[in-house]
Amino acid sequence: MYFPGLFLFFSLFSLVLSEEPFNSHILPRPLILEYPGNIIETTQFKQLDNELQLQCTSWRFAVEANNLNPWKTIPQECVHYVRDYVMGRGYRLDLERVSNEAGVFAKSVQKSEDGKDAWVFDVDETLLSNLPYYADHGYGLEIFDPVEFDKWVEKALAPAIEPSLKLYKEILGLGFKVFLLTGRSEKQRIVTEENLIKAGFQDWDKLILRASDDHGKLATIYKSEKRSEMVKEGYRILGNSGDQWSDLLGSAISNRSFKLPNPMYYIP
Amino acid sequence: MYFPGLFLFFSLFSLVLSEEPFNSHILPRPLILEYPGNIIETTQFKQLDNELQLQCTSWRFAVEANNLNPWKTIPQECVHYVRDYVMGRGYRLDLERVSNEAGVFAKSVQKSEDGKDAWVFDVDETLLSNLPYYADHGYGLEIFDPVEFDKWVEKALAPAIEPSLKLYKEILGLGFKVFLLTGRSEKQRIVTEENLIKAGFQDWDKLILRASDDHGKLATIYKSEKRSEMVKEGYRILGNSGDQWSDLLGSAISNRSFKLPNPMYYIP
Repeated sequence: MYFPGLFLFFSLFSLVLSEEPFNSHILPRPLILEYPGNIIETTQFKQLDNELQLQCTSWRFAVEANNLNPWKTIPQECVHYVRDYVMGRGYRLDLERVSNEAGVFAKSVQKSEDGKDAWVFDVDETLLSNLPYYADHGYGLEIFDPVEFDKWVEKALAPAIEPSLKLYKEILGLGFKVFLLTGRSEKQRIVTEENLIKAGFQDWDKLILRASDDHGKLATIYKSEKRSEMVKEGYRILGNSGDQWSDLLGSAISNRSFKLPNPMYYIP
Repeated sequence: MYFPGLFLFFSLFSLVLSEEPFNSHILPRPLILEYPGNIIETTQFKQLDNELQLQCTSWRFAVEANNLNPWKTIPQECVHYVRDYVMGRGYRLDLERVSNEAGVFAKSVQKSEDGKDAWVFDVDETLLSNLPYYADHGYGLEIFDPVEFDKWVEKALAPAIEPSLKLYKEILGLGFKVFLLTGRSEKQRIVTEENLIKAGFQDWDKLILRASDDHGKLATIYKSEKRSEMVKEGYRILGNSGDQWSDLLGSAISNRSFKLPNPMYYIP
């Protein structure tokens, strides 16, 4: 604990120093003043840090409010910001909040006795976390590599998103039919089932994956078609949880949608 | 600059001290150690501050991602957070980003020569800012008072949201028909026009306000109906800018929607 303390002390000390009006580029200075050069750099870094924090938070808001054009990678300058968010308490809090809100809605909404009340869950970054994969691939800074990602999927090692698992169990307990609607390929059915079960998920009604003729469709189209089929079969989609807007928008949309945070990738 | 520096110095110094393992409730302490009581309080305050910052940021994300049930006031504990956000650089940055994104889309989208390409703008917190009113009413902490708010509207003093004014002019310059679709009452037409013109907005195609039979309708329904009328008249709604999800969702939705930030109030 000694070094971090000292480092923090000097960083903070430099902030205090920076309260003095001081222009290092103009004033002639005695050599003794050269010493705090380090300190000034730290101050500049801190200011940049605040500005970056603001800019990347603004970018993240734009992601979550669906204001951005399709994007392929996170902004280079936000890689540390995204890492700190997804590895830290911010992501956890956001996941807990969205699951709690969904749980409150699920309990309050009028349900019928006919077994046709349904809840749709996406899989990746909704029920299962691929954070171990993305941690090794720049948290979204690298362009998505489907071959590498499929190798990770084949391992069936994605952990549960714990607040989603809690919600999942509540939803089942309330008598909803649960549909898992994922952009993963039909070829990955067995490994996906294995991973879901290992992570604690069970008793879903149907796991829907992309069949060969679904490949190439935008996720919004593919998922809308699948939801429309549910509606045609008489299901009422009361709730839908997904980390992508393409999980939630389109046609046959649910009574209420719940957008889980995901600042690492975008699927149109 | 002297006092803030000193205060900062001691606050930061306390953070450094807090790196030491120290349990004030268990260990017997000599009186000399009583002195930093202040410092420990400051540290606790700082920790609370960080925790509050995280919690209120998470709440704001839930607002912007439309994850919350209808809410009547902002959380009591987030009043300073919301004030700092809307009065500070964060709100400004978010407004600029959403206007820029909308501008990029407006330029890129395929337009026709028939004069039927339309852009819909909401008014309050989209084109005009009621921040001077909300600053006097707890930034959303007070329950909305329609009588008081109408007095403010009658003054026609709401300033432009500058990034929206910039977008508005771009949209007009690109040849879009501009429809202003507001939840304000038809009775406020003249004062609304006066305020918009004073703030720099002009040349809209139509300003649509709630007629007497629209009162009592949910905003989502009222606005969907009005957009459907536009579509029936042959308009293609390519873009829609609003600070509420009820401006953007429902039927006859635009090709792309742009959600402006608003952590102060919610309209279902």
